[in-house]
Amino acid sequence: MEKDNLSLVLHSKGDLRLEQRPIPEPGADEVLLQMHSVGICGSDVHYWQNGRIGDYIVQKPMVLGHEAAGRVVKVGSAVTHLKPGDRVAIEPGVPREMDEFFKSGRYNLSPTIFFCATPPDDGNLCRYYKHNANFCYKLPDNVSYEEGALLEPLSVGIHACRRAGVTLGSSVFICGAGPIGLVTLLVAKSMGASQVLISDLSADRLAKAKELGADFVLPVKREDTPQEMAKRVDGMLGCMPHITIDCTGVENSIQTAIYATHSGGVVVLVGLGAEMVTVPLVTAAVREVDIRGVFRYCNTWPIAIAMLASKRVNVKPLVTHRFPLEQAVEAFETTRQGIGIKVMLKCDKNDQNP
Amino acid sequence: MEKDNLSLVLHSKGDLRLEQRPIPEPGADEVLLQMHSVGICGSDVHYWQNGRIGDYIVQKPMVLGHEAAGRVVKVGSAVTHLKPGDRVAIEPGVPREMDEFFKSGRYNLSPTIFFCATPPDDGNLCRYYKHNANFCYKLPDNVSYEEGALLEPLSVGIHACRRAGVTLGSSVFICGAGPIGLVTLLVAKSMGASQVLISDLSADRLAKAKELGADFVLPVKREDTPQEMAKRVDGMLGCMPHITIDCTGVENSIQTAIYATHSGGVVVLVGLGAEMVTVPLVTAAVREVDIRGVFRYCNTWPIAIAMLASKRVNVKPLVTHRFPLEQAVEAFETTRQGIGIKVMLKCDKNDQNP
Amino acid sequence: MEKDNLSLVLHSKGDLRLEQRPIPEPGADEVLLQMHSVGICGSDVHYWQNGRIGDYIVQKPMVLGHEAAGRVVKVGSAVTHLKPGDRVAIEPGVPREMDEFFKSGRYNLSPTIFFCATPPDDGNLCRYYKHNANFCYKLPDNVSYEEGALLEPLSVGIHACRRAGVTLGSSVFICGAGPIGLVTLLVAKSMGASQVLISDLSADRLAKAKELGADFVLPVKREDTPQEMAKRVDGMLGCMPHITIDCTGVENSIQTAIYATHSGGVVVLVGLGAEMVTVPLVTAAVREVDIRGVFRYCNTWPIAIAMLASKRVNVKPLVTHRFPLEQAVEAFETTRQGIGIKVMLKCDKNDQNP
Amino acid sequence: MEKDNLSLVLHSKGDLRLEQRPIPEPGADEVLLQMHSVGICGSDVHYWQNGRIGDYIVQKPMVLGHEAAGRVVKVGSAVTHLKPGDRVAIEPGVPREMDEFFKSGRYNLSPTIFFCATPPDDGNLCRYYKHNANFCYKLPDNVSYEEGALLEPLSVGIHACRRAGVTLGSSVFICGAGPIGLVTLLVAKSMGASQVLISDLSADRLAKAKELGADFVLPVKREDTPQEMAKRVDGMLGCMPHITIDCTGVENSIQTAIYATHSGGVVVLVGLGAEMVTVPLVTAAVREVDIRGVFRYCNTWPIAIAMLASKRVNVKPLVTHRFPLEQAVEAFETTRQGIGIKVMLKCDKNDQNP
Repeated sequence: MEKDNLSLVLHSKGDLRLEQRPIPEPGADEVLLQMHSVGICGSDVHYWQNGRIGDYIVQKPMVLGHEAAGRVVKVGSAVTHLKPGDRVAIEPGVPREMDEFFKSGRYNLSPTIFFCATPPDDGNLCRYYKHNANFCYKLPDNVSYEEGALLEPLSVGIHACRRAGVTLGSSVFICGAGPIGLVTLLVAKSMGASQVLISDLSADRLAKAKELGADFVLPVKREDTPQEMAKRVDGMLGCMPHITIDCTGVENSIQTAIYATHSGGVVVLVGLGAEMVTVPLVTAAVREVDIRGVFRYCNTWPIAIAMLASKRVNVKPLVTHRFPLEQAVEAFETTRQGIGIKVMLKCDKNDQNP
Repeated sequence: MEKDNLSLVLHSKGDLRLEQRPIPEPGADEVLLQMHSVGICGSDVHYWQNGRIGDYIVQKPMVLGHEAAGRVVKVGSAVTHLKPGDRVAIEPGVPREMDEFFKSGRYNLSPTIFFCATPPDDGNLCRYYKHNANFCYKLPDNVSYEEGALLEPLSVGIHACRRAGVTLGSSVFICGAGPIGLVTLLVAKSMGASQVLISDLSADRLAKAKELGADFVLPVKREDTPQEMAKRVDGMLGCMPHITIDCTGVENSIQTAIYATHSGGVVVLVGLGAEMVTVPLVTAAVREVDIRGVFRYCNTWPIAIAMLASKRVNVKPLVTHRFPLEQAVEAFETTRQGIGIKVMLKCDKNDQNP
Repeated sequence: MEKDNLSLVLHSKGDLRLEQRPIPEPGADEVLLQMHSVGICGSDVHYWQNGRIGDYIVQKPMVLGHEAAGRVVKVGSAVTHLKPGDRVAIEPGVPREMDEFFKSGRYNLSPTIFFCATPPDDGNLCRYYKHNANFCYKLPDNVSYEEGALLEPLSVGIHACRRAGVTLGSSVFICGAGPIGLVTLLVAKSMGASQVLISDLSADRLAKAKELGADFVLPVKREDTPQEMAKRVDGMLGCMPHITIDCTGVENSIQTAIYATHSGGVVVLVGLGAEMVTVPLVTAAVREVDIRGVFRYCNTWPIAIAMLASKRVNVKPLVTHRFPLEQAVEAFETTRQGIGIKVMLKCDKNDQNP
Repeated sequence: MEKDNLSLVLHSKGDLRLEQRPIPEPGADEVLLQMHSVGICGSDVHYWQNGRIGDYIVQKPMVLGHEAAGRVVKVGSAVTHLKPGDRVAIEPGVPREMDEFFKSGRYNLSPTIFFCATPPDDGNLCRYYKHNANFCYKLPDNVSYEEGALLEPLSVGIHACRRAGVTLGSSVFICGAGPIGLVTLLVAKSMGASQVLISDLSADRLAKAKELGADFVLPVKREDTPQEMAKRVDGMLGCMPHITIDCTGVENSIQTAIYATHSGGVVVLVGLGAEMVTVPLVTAAVREVDIRGVFRYCNTWPIAIAMLASKRVNVKPLVTHRFPLEQAVEAFETTRQGIGIKVMLKCDKNDQNP
């Protein structure tokens, strides 16, 4: 077997290095994967730039990357549903304990969960990576590796829309047209939303949203007040949206979300910003507008694969840049500058196709 | 005002007559409508042929028709949201009492509900008809009268899919490709079903289903056993469906539905057949396959209109025949013979457009 | 018939008068009631002291009172389920429109709803009062008028606990042991909560809570930080509560609620305070702690009556003071000073029993 | 350590033997338990008498027993939450695979689950037994071993009532007053049911039900028709029950359940009878009475323990007989004859207390 396991390792804030790591040996329940495509997430860049996200602090070198797909090259002794050669997408969170959260189907909330590229757990921006086989999902022939990698951000959108209760005829307002806003748009439409309005500061992002199927786009200026924005949303949709999904984490966007949402509706918080925010909670409460957060996702991969396989959702237009793993730092720089939407790293020297 | 109120009246089993009736005067909460398009439903034909459906017995002459859209010509004194000239779709069920069902949002179950063309309540296969204004819904300009009339069968599909819990990635098996099976197919796809399989005895109906977006079609023969059918469904979908919606009411189709559905899934009964049926209830129970019926619908018109206005669902291909009201008996005969899918009666002499 | 219709009328901020009003005539759907027992609510006192609550402003004289029970003395022409002599409890909110909220079972959110003693709608602190018969509920013989009046605050507790999802084995933390906190406690226990902890500034109120069945009581001091309080709650319960119901509306109590609640749990906001509050929304979001408000209630009276009739819940200890209607101002002063828990006004000169 | 591991082994239909088995060694995730109290379930007796239940066939000797509690005597290397000396209750079902059911919180439906005393998996009617530590739950000091063993039948009641949606003010009809009917009664009351009616052929069982808190008891005769029974239920409760829980599995009891249940309500099937049953499915469907089965339970132990610890539920009166393990065959004979309610086997020679 190959010896090269080039890996993108964050040593500490600002110190990102491409270096060799030993190829790991899969345990009984694990598979060893030859990585193919790994997307760069805003959180990867955030760790690089800040060395931490909230209480998660990079205290020892950590491999980055958690939006990933690859090919099985070795299977552990207890693995029966996968075999070498299988193309798989990786769900990066693997519960370590059979606690109440896992038993009740909300394993994403398990406090001891393993999660790729969340300190201290290594991610999969490398040539070879081992993962719990139960959280590797076989890709159908008509789903590419890159689509496989995009199942991760798509899962955020699915979890957000499920928590929001998007259903047939829902009017949905999405704040923020970054990668997460855009996948949320795709998912909301697939779940039957009759109209989706998306807002952003950037005209480019709104243009992309329009291209991906947004019914309405609303440019935001920093000086807009939340009440004005809410009124504008109502005006464009012809009604207050049942559901608002905030993908920005910005205080006045959350305020807008609360003012804008129809009585009896739901505000979902996907974007994370400052720990303390000032919000019109009474306005939400007396109109029974529920406020729900999302933490990653659970039980989304099989569904997301079914959607891609059946061509119900098309995530391919999200990929705007590709770099070989060897140029990972340049790729990260591209994402840091906010260029394009999704940057893919190609980890297999012999196959750099989508 | 016009004096002509030609109406299609069922006097008793087999005795269907076109006759003049007085143009009614709307009450305070009502609107008078000039009817435009009214679809023929299987239940209309069933009353004609049998004089009854279950405990509902035609005991005095009754106007038929309940899939309808028209134009407001007069409004009652208390009506504020509609005005003459408005194009509206009619929800045929109007609760008469503010009972527990109405108060809790399930007014379709209210035992004293008024319902068009269910004895003894008159329907709207006529020139002029009055209806509670709260159950008339304004049509957007881009939704035609015929689409407005089709909101009624579409509502059956919506209610069935909602009761079934169809959502993103659902695998759905629909038994029966008649008009209700077909609208259920359209709705299931709109709600995010990743694959829909539909079965029927008729190859023609299956061809239509395929045209409307069915992922798989399964021809049924009378001699097929339920267990064999279930196995075939599993084979075609690559898994057992999460949801099975029976639109036939036939005993061995219900048996098939139970055997076919995935553990933890749902069987919805839309079609109604014999009062007593023999079913493998233990098989359903120990696999926690829930069995849920539907009775008409509630809270569907606004959603259905939103779906048509946003072009998320296309019901137009369902209309295969049109007749002027004057030829209503011929139109009923067409439906009775099972020709085509949906037959529309055109009630406005001056506008026979869709 | 009697001519005396002594009524407690709020003319403007601070100007509360007992005066005669004409005895009203019930409409077709209404009943005329001889009022028996009416509880004083904090909101009644708030209107008296401030002339407004949020956007609801007293602009013309308004009869106060909305926690009420009485006896039918006359029925409108369309009323069939009640007759003179029936003892009834009054649900004070009556939807005026058959809008989307009413049709879908959440009529409390209907923006045009009639509501007793919310400007400009009159309440029922008087001798004779007419009300929509569909929102008057017959009391069983073993439920007293005062219990009938207490169905209103009990309904707030039921709606809060239902929105919270209290169920078998729930651990519940209630902030605030005023009348609403106490009924919420009673309801939470009835719905199967395994342990209920209640906090308050007042030792007296906590003593009452203990008497009513609280498993744990937690005295609060103004200087306690939310994080400390949350830790104390965890320590007393032996776990973080699944559900926290804030009945105070105070900012640092809401903060405590968010920190204290178990991941995947629910915070319900019953108390209303300042429009804008600063809260640790990220903490709620990443632990998927949902924040839900309540606005009054819907569909609670029949359930609440069933609970009282079956002796599952005992609300009688809540009544600590009684005054004849003639002493209404003194009664209001008692409530204003925070003396006791629930003050009852007795409106029937000939029957001042509970 | 002790060498005696007397075990109750079913060799084949009718062939029940007390014999020595080796004391097992716990694996990394397991604990070794000294068994204390094990209840006899109807299914244990059924295997003994019939050698099978449905497709589960006793093909090799199997230890019986799955309602059990014991004391930890040894812990596997990976176990951290238990230590020798801990008193625990055993959840008998342990999923073997991390499949879709397990991941989504419905592990009871996992087709490859291990389950005590379901062929070919051994149960715990023995002196020493090893079990997955994640499915052993520590008992609080105020919960006895026998209560710990009764958590198993109590879990059936909890799962049934949860699937039924029992909540505050529910009217509940339970068919069958055997052990499962009785625990269902206890749970329904704890979840807020305002009235519970229970029916049975046996006057003795109904007397016990009354003692345990049934509001109404209804004696059944074999010749009663389902429609008559339904009418009688309505008459006693003063309304049709929202929820009917059938604990008999008998065809005409299931028919009664469907006729008796309120429109929009739920029938839950706990008892299992003949594979094919004839039922009035149209009656259920058009009144939207849902039919739901239960298969064992999931996520019930922590809740059930909380209920017992807080004294919200008292299961102690269910134990009517006790035998030392050495007299297991006599104990089984007692259960087979339908004497008493729950028979407990005491497996610890040195501690035969409750």
